Order: sequence, then C-alpha cells, then structure tokens
Amino acid sequence: MFLKNIRMIGVLRLGHRVRRDKRISTHVFLTARALGANFGVFTGDEDDNIINSLAETARIWGGSFKVEYSGNYVNTINEFKNKGFKIVHLTMYGLPIKDKISELKCFKDILLIVGGAKVPREVYTLSDYNISVGFQPHSEVAALAIFLHEYYEGKELDIKFPEARLVVEPQEKGKKVLKCF
Amino acid sequence: MFLKNIRMIGVLRLGHRVRRDKRISTHVFLTARALGANFGVFTGDEDDNIINSLAETARIWGGSFKVEYSGNYVNTINEFKNKGFKIVHLTMYGLPIKDKISELKCFKDILLIVGGAKVPREVYTLSDYNISVGFQPHSEVAALAIFLHEYYEGKELDIKFPEARLVVEPQEKGKKVLKCF
Repeated sequence: MFLKNIRMIGVLRLGHRVRRDKRISTHVFLTARALGANFGVFTGDEDDNIINSLAETARIWGGSFKVEYSGNYVNTINEFKNKGFKIVHLTMYGLPIKDKISELKCFKDILLIVGGAKVPREVYTLSDYNISVGFQPHSEVAALAIFLHEYYEGKELDIKFPEARLVVEPQEKGKKVLKCF
Repeated sequence: MFLKNIRMIGVLRLGHRVRRDKRISTHVFLTARALGANFGVFTGDEDDNIINSLAETARIWGGSFKVEYSGNYVNTINEFKNKGFKIVHLTMYGLPIKDKISELKCFKDILLIVGGAKVPREVYTLSDYNISVGFQPHSEVAALAIFLHEYYEGKELDIKFPEARLVVEPQEKGKKVLKCF
C-alpha cells in the first residue's frame, strides 16, 4: 500500500496493566494497524497476549504490523528521536489537533504516544508535540483513530493489506468474507 | 452547544459483558459523550459502574450525557425507530462510510449501534444502514469516533460543555485545568 512505503508511523502505548488494560491496549494496536500505522510498542506490564493477538490479526487479515514490548519508555522515545522520528503525544491537555495537523502531515516518520493511567510529566517535555483530540476525557483508542484519520485524510480506510487470507466484501445487509488462501 | 440543540444522537452498545468489556464499554460512552452524542444505552450484563462513571464524568466535565441499561435490544431499536430515529449499525462488513456519510448527515436523529462480541444477524436487518469504518478488525471505540468526527465534520472537537466544573486550557507542554466551581 502506497501509504506504508513512504511513511513510518509507530504507536507507543504507555503503562500497560495486564489485568486492567488488556482489551484497551489490544484495541489501541488493532486501531493503529487498521488505520495505517506500521508498528506498536508498549511499556508497563509484559504481555504476550497482545503481541500474539496482533500477529494473528496480521496473519489472517494481511500486512506486516508488529508489536513489541519495551521495558523503558525514555529509551524508546530517545531511540526513535535519534532515528529522526517526530514524537507526538496525544493528550487532552495539549494543543488542538486542528491547529497542528497541517504541520504534522509534513513529517513522514512519527511515533505517536498514547497514555495509560498516569502519564509521567517527562513525556510532555520529551515529546515534540502534545496534541489534543478534544478537551474532554474520552479514550486513547478514539484519539488515535481521529489522529490517523486526519493525518491520512481518510485514505487510510482504503488501505489494501497484502497477503490477506480474509477480505471483506462490503454489504448493505449481512456479512460477506472472501477467503484468499 | 448548538450541535446538541438541533440533533439527537444516541449510541447503543450491544452485548456488554461486565468482566470482559468493562473498560471498552466505558470508553465507548466517554467517546460518544466527548464527540457530541447525547445519550447511551447498553444491553447484555447490567452494570451500574458504567452508568455511574458517565454520570460522574458529566458532573465534573459538564453536559447532560446519560447512559441507561436496556434488557432487550430489539425493543430499544424499535422504540427509537418509532420516534423517527435512523438506525445506523457500525460494522466492518457494511458499506463504506465515505459513500454514505453525506446521506447520513441529512438525518438529525440517529441511533448508532456498536457491537459486542457476536452481533445477532437481526441487527443487520433491523438497521437502516450498516456502515463500515474500514474493512479490518479494529475497535468499536475507533469506529464510533471516526463516525462522529465525519458526521459533525470536526466541529464536535469544539463543543463547549455547559456547567463544567473543570475546563482544560490547551498547553504546549504540561497540563492546565481551570476550576469553575
């Protein structure tokens, strides 16, 4: 898919808690994958379920999205900074997405950070941008979705995932799935 | 807020499971509230935590968003149909949002349905529209967020919530919250 060849977008999910966040963290990465991000990283509790769940999704539905665990978010942020990535932290306390999205579209390599429960102050200062998707408490999944939708201008919904075993054929009523084994 | 005076958007979350979905269902409704929906309904397990959590959010952050439990999704769907609501089911198997959003913007009263684990076939036929936000498995939170963002054309991010006790003042770095008691 053309988007993937020229851009490299990662999502860093902070402070995963294996009991409480299992499904939210999985939704974060499923959303990242489906909407055009290339990889995911999480800190907090180690959790193979997330890594395996996303690997299985990619095996069935295509593409090469992968998730890794990191033991240290500062190291991860600095590692990507050194590779030339812009660090964009999504937070309800940041600057409005509509004021910054044109500027952010210029960057082809971005590490998006989404919080867990309590985001350390350091994340706000280490980030190149702190961006809000609304100023209300809602969901890191929603914030990430709207960010990617704005960043890719809706084109992310047309991504074709290579080597998919299952492909949906849109229907007015019901489900139709093509098997491409 | 002007959006709320002329439109009535509800979100029906199907098949809530109190253990597994607690946080996802809460994120669904927080997202619904933050992005301009007016009320929520859920079926499946009864769960006062969700109702109380959203009531507390509205008490602190303003507005009048409320969540109710329904014991029967068919009754709920038919009830809203009889009130003149269009029923829009968000599903990865439906028709692409980009092909239908202009038509859907004409409707001022909409009940959006988002799935739980297994959506009964009946939901596809009872719904006036089955709409996909991408054809990949991702998240009902993400699908809802992008739907509302498209429906309100981004204006939902500027909603002012009446009688808020806390209001965020956007910052380049860090947090600033105004207390309006």
